[in-house]
Amino acid sequence: MLARRLSALCIRSVSGKQLVYAEYGDPTKVVKLQTIDLNDTPPSGQVHVKWIASPINPADLNTLQGVYPIKPPLPAVGGSEGFGRVEKLGDGVKTLKVGDHVLPSRSGLGIWRTDGYHKETDLFQIDKTLPLEASASLQVNPPTAYRMLKDFVDLKEGDTIIQNGANSSVGKAAIQICRIRGIRSINIVRKRDNMAAFISSLKALGANEVITEDQLVKEYRGKIKDVRLALNCVGGRSALLLATTLGHGGCMVTYGGMSKQPLQVPTGPLIFKDIRLVGFWMSRWYEDQKNLEERKRMNADLTSWIKSGEFRPPTFEKRNLEHYKEALEAAATSFVKKQLFIL
Amino acid sequence: MLARRLSALCIRSVSGKQLVYAEYGDPTKVVKLQTIDLNDTPPSGQVHVKWIASPINPADLNTLQGVYPIKPPLPAVGGSEGFGRVEKLGDGVKTLKVGDHVLPSRSGLGIWRTDGYHKETDLFQIDKTLPLEASASLQVNPPTAYRMLKDFVDLKEGDTIIQNGANSSVGKAAIQICRIRGIRSINIVRKRDNMAAFISSLKALGANEVITEDQLVKEYRGKIKDVRLALNCVGGRSALLLATTLGHGGCMVTYGGMSKQPLQVPTGPLIFKDIRLVGFWMSRWYEDQKNLEERKRMNADLTSWIKSGEFRPPTFEKRNLEHYKEALEAAATSFVKKQLFIL
Repeated sequence: MLARRLSALCIRSVSGKQLVYAEYGDPTKVVKLQTIDLNDTPPSGQVHVKWIASPINPADLNTLQGVYPIKPPLPAVGGSEGFGRVEKLGDGVKTLKVGDHVLPSRSGLGIWRTDGYHKETDLFQIDKTLPLEASASLQVNPPTAYRMLKDFVDLKEGDTIIQNGANSSVGKAAIQICRIRGIRSINIVRKRDNMAAFISSLKALGANEVITEDQLVKEYRGKIKDVRLALNCVGGRSALLLATTLGHGGCMVTYGGMSKQPLQVPTGPLIFKDIRLVGFWMSRWYEDQKNLEERKRMNADLTSWIKSGEFRPPTFEKRNLEHYKEALEAAATSFVKKQLFIL
Repeated sequence: MLARRLSALCIRSVSGKQLVYAEYGDPTKVVKLQTIDLNDTPPSGQVHVKWIASPINPADLNTLQGVYPIKPPLPAVGGSEGFGRVEKLGDGVKTLKVGDHVLPSRSGLGIWRTDGYHKETDLFQIDKTLPLEASASLQVNPPTAYRMLKDFVDLKEGDTIIQNGANSSVGKAAIQICRIRGIRSINIVRKRDNMAAFISSLKALGANEVITEDQLVKEYRGKIKDVRLALNCVGGRSALLLATTLGHGGCMVTYGGMSKQPLQVPTGPLIFKDIRLVGFWMSRWYEDQKNLEERKRMNADLTSWIKSGEFRPPTFEKRNLEHYKEALEAAATSFVKKQLFIL
């Protein structure tokens, strides 16, 4: 008995921190910083991951607000994207080894924490020589752009796509993947100060055209047609304008609704030009186990493009967990400076 | 030489009438009744069809107005649906014989005429024991309903579909095909006088629910869900309401836009419930030669349902060609009394 008690006392524990929430609501109010102690040894089939960096994505905020379709059982750890390093293996773990870099294999794992024990099937191994920002953002935005450009229309070199919200993380990833694949991209953006510099920055990524909605309606009226794919994250009238540029058999993929307005779609092209409208949700794609091999291929493509310098990952404002309130506040008010927790 | 001339003079000719238009515009103004003479013998590979009956569909009026995507070379004979009887065969005709009843095999053939010579591949043989109204309407509306209920979602017995414009010819065909196939139909209609009698008439065809948009928004709010297929011929807000009833993986098929408003589609369900929106155009389906065998199957189904009394073809107001102005006028102003030329 005494031996057992001593042994129990002698088990070292891992001490860490995490951002948890026990109710849905205003992210800056419901999220709390918590100290945690984990047993030194992960349970069988699980690994100890030291999480390294995790961004704050809009979907994370919506999850905290309780308005996202993913609702983890509460209390839960916030965050769903990020990468970490495998520290220790539980019994029976076969696919990972200490030192490996990993992403979550699915959404909703809770990544805003320094340490976690996770099933090996909940993790996806990545190249450990990738830069920090690239690793931390390899799960959500570039894959969303990659899949939308691959899964709905068989795009060939020289084909044209159009997108709104072109300055979003997905938008900038789409611009670059189009450039790499030889696809022309027409990018619809909002009017802003320093328009010339802003246009230059997107053209530097590979954008063929960067225009405002207003220009699309006036100067470019009727000139943009036979577009094969439209990527829509705005909705409302903006979606209508994209749809009118689609050629026969074209497709509009919706992955966001920033305007909070229902999409508008012209009836004629839908019927007579055989266009179709679909939605895309990266989280659902990851849930489907039959996509695992294709995810490895996608990851290999993105990794090689990042390493060759062809694909630039997003830039971030880095924060540590202690400054989570400022980080959440900044993430909620600005799409421009993306927030990244360094864990 | 003399013998030849005499022979030419002795060729009997077929005299008939047709409704032609040489310019696009107001149907009652651009359409003219014309007498025609055809050689007694159809050219090689063609057959002489005595057309028997042909409806005036909305698409026919739009074609005359020049606002439809099908633009036959002018001058052209109006009308695109109807049936006739094979009178005489040209050389080399193999698939048809005298006395066969035929439909056009594609749109735009020009059916508002008593007589025509047509390539055998432009004709599609039907059962000659079908009633006149059924034969005359076997190409457009019931097939549109049939295909939309078959080609987009794998509907099983007990599944639910929703449609607006349920009192249209396609709508009433869809109600009946659903009843025959054991599919529940929820039918959205406009408020009108004699609502109870109107509801009864659609329920007599097999409608499970007949409700107004207003009822869908109020009494039925949130109660209709997990609908697998929505058929939309209205657009605007009505499409939005249909879309909100779709369950995971559901599909909305648009085949008309009576409100002349762009469709509205909620963003959330598109992304998170994986719903999709497509258009359907019967004419395009017929253009695709690989659909010929499937057309034969569809035609066999519809024919057997009509003959067994399970499927009621539309009722028509019958007109002869001489009264074409009144018929065109009536077709343009009322969707209720469909017009049928008796040729």
